[in-house]
Amino acid sequence: MKHGNTRFLIVGLGLMGGSYAKALSERGYAVDGIDIDSTTIDYALKHGYIQRGGIVNEVSLITDADVIISCVYPRTCVNWILENQKYMKSGAYLSDISGVKANVVEPIQTSLRKDLEFVPAHPMCGRELRGVVYANTEMIKGANFILTPTEKNSEEAVSFFVEFAKELGFGKISRLTCEEHDRMIAYVSQLTHAIAVSLMNASENPQINEYTGDSFRDLTRIAKINEQMWSELFIGNKQNLIREIDAFQMELSSLKQAIEDEDYAELKEKFIQSTQRRIQFDR
Amino acid sequence: MKHGNTRFLIVGLGLMGGSYAKALSERGYAVDGIDIDSTTIDYALKHGYIQRGGIVNEVSLITDADVIISCVYPRTCVNWILENQKYMKSGAYLSDISGVKANVVEPIQTSLRKDLEFVPAHPMCGRELRGVVYANTEMIKGANFILTPTEKNSEEAVSFFVEFAKELGFGKISRLTCEEHDRMIAYVSQLTHAIAVSLMNASENPQINEYTGDSFRDLTRIAKINEQMWSELFIGNKQNLIREIDAFQMELSSLKQAIEDEDYAELKEKFIQSTQRRIQFDR
Repeated sequence: MKHGNTRFLIVGLGLMGGSYAKALSERGYAVDGIDIDSTTIDYALKHGYIQRGGIVNEVSLITDADVIISCVYPRTCVNWILENQKYMKSGAYLSDISGVKANVVEPIQTSLRKDLEFVPAHPMCGRELRGVVYANTEMIKGANFILTPTEKNSEEAVSFFVEFAKELGFGKISRLTCEEHDRMIAYVSQLTHAIAVSLMNASENPQINEYTGDSFRDLTRIAKINEQMWSELFIGNKQNLIREIDAFQMELSSLKQAIEDEDYAELKEKFIQSTQRRIQFDR
Repeated sequence: MKHGNTRFLIVGLGLMGGSYAKALSERGYAVDGIDIDSTTIDYALKHGYIQRGGIVNEVSLITDADVIISCVYPRTCVNWILENQKYMKSGAYLSDISGVKANVVEPIQTSLRKDLEFVPAHPMCGRELRGVVYANTEMIKGANFILTPTEKNSEEAVSFFVEFAKELGFGKISRLTCEEHDRMIAYVSQLTHAIAVSLMNASENPQINEYTGDSFRDLTRIAKINEQMWSELFIGNKQNLIREIDAFQMELSSLKQAIEDEDYAELKEKFIQSTQRRIQFDR
């Protein structure tokens, strides 16, 4: 990246924040960290993920930062940035990892100091695990990275984060508007989680692991779900998600009808279409 | 297994049949094969999966067999066994791999010669690939194996297939009635395929692979689906599957309602329940 002595501040040393800190530190960047939990900070310091750490709004860490990345849940992200922007260095860059953009980007961009710049981002990687102890740079490798800049963003700042993503090992780096992102994420990520959770909750059968093949395991891997974060993401993208759930349910009802009608031809047509699309999707 | 010189006949050298043949041959058993396609037979002979091969109803292969395993689709399975039982050796054991039992087991058990015994089975493993060229014994290792014996089955024959499964490397071996099996399979396997297909078909977006994380990939792995086999399985287990689709749809609608109502508490409750169940499910 452009500035060799760029000082990073990671706010929220969870799975993602911890992994960012680890990845940056491994590449020789100066990284500080902020968290609400002192055990987390101790762990991150001990493992060399951060050089300095502080609780919540350790002012000196904020003041020193050239780049601040919020790795906390959406609502906390907005609050923390707006409450602590008064401590930030003029010209500092900000970014985030929020899984929905609608209720995060606009509130921030509207009230942000004019000499700060917030470039929204969404790293498309994660694990069902929580906390800095699971920080890992492997999950970043080759993962998709999405930037959702607005008219308030400069090309310079956006380019910085493109480089940031490449440096950390992300694969495809895309740009979408916030609206495009939220529409897309409703389908590729939120709907899938809604499905996995509903599948898991649809049956009480406690012995199923004796009978299952891989398909059940695959479909419910993400049924182990961080309830705080995902309730914020779901409700934060309500209209898009409901639309996607409706579209999916309609498709499933159509499949059910074909089974009801014992319509082999119709069923096969659906299976063939599904197969063709999945083949196209494969890397 | 009990008889060192047991001669196996595999009917249908597809992915599963080919894998069975390969696994048995590797362990030194005498294995013959029958298929409708001569290229398949040549391949299996060439790779040592079978010692002798023949098309469809090669009588000498059927007559010589002590154990005949039908690895063809459900409807073909019933037809082939009933049409060719006249060639079978007295005391021969038969089995299958059908993914639904309702429209397979009863038709066979009702009309089977009294001196033959059919022990229905369902190996819970597979890949989205078809054909003997993909035969692999790895997918068998540790997979679940289900037997669905009826009152027409002897303990001796059932024990034989328990040993068979252990010998080939299956993991947990369970016994269910045909009804229990079909109810269970509707949830753990058929519903998951119905979901994956519907998810894949719900959107035309051709660029999604640039934006997706692992969840979409996980949920649609099985969207590449063998349309002949799966239309038979779905319609063959129609009532159970429709019931499971309905239960799943109801759960998903309830989730949708919680989003609509912006009911954080309700959403979190669903997520926590899902997480707890998934943790219990983990090996």
